[in-house]
Amino acid sequence: MISLRKSFATNLRRERLSLGLSQEDLAHMAGLHRTYVGLVERGECNISIDNIERLARALGVEATELMK
Amino acid sequence: MISLRKSFATNLRRERLSLGLSQEDLAHMAGLHRTYVGLVERGECNISIDNIERLARALGVEATELMK
Repeated sequence: MISLRKSFATNLRRERLSLGLSQEDLAHMAGLHRTYVGLVERGECNISIDNIERLARALGVEATELMK
Repeated sequence: MISLRKSFATNLRRERLSLGLSQEDLAHMAGLHRTYVGLVERGECNISIDNIERLARALGVEATELMK
């Protein structure tokens, strides 16, 4: 199980790249650390719902778009 | 901000009650503690994506259904 984490990781990276943002850019926009964004995009971090919301808002997408 | 947490809390409670489950029932089905489910339903817990997946699976819904 724990496939939602992997889907989120994949979707996050895709959305970030589609906006031409670096991990550092996105981290800055979301108020998070660059290394944390890297961990999340590799599925190595069990991200919390508050940080899911921060990243979705920074990307301008609904959180559900990152969870499909 | 941090409204996603509140939406999740509301949706989780609604879905649980629609299935006639107690917090203890749901906790048991998801492999979590009863008091933890209560915290999540009151929005007092910054739930992780892995536990979002556990609760969604236990309820038989997509995680996105709990995040709207």
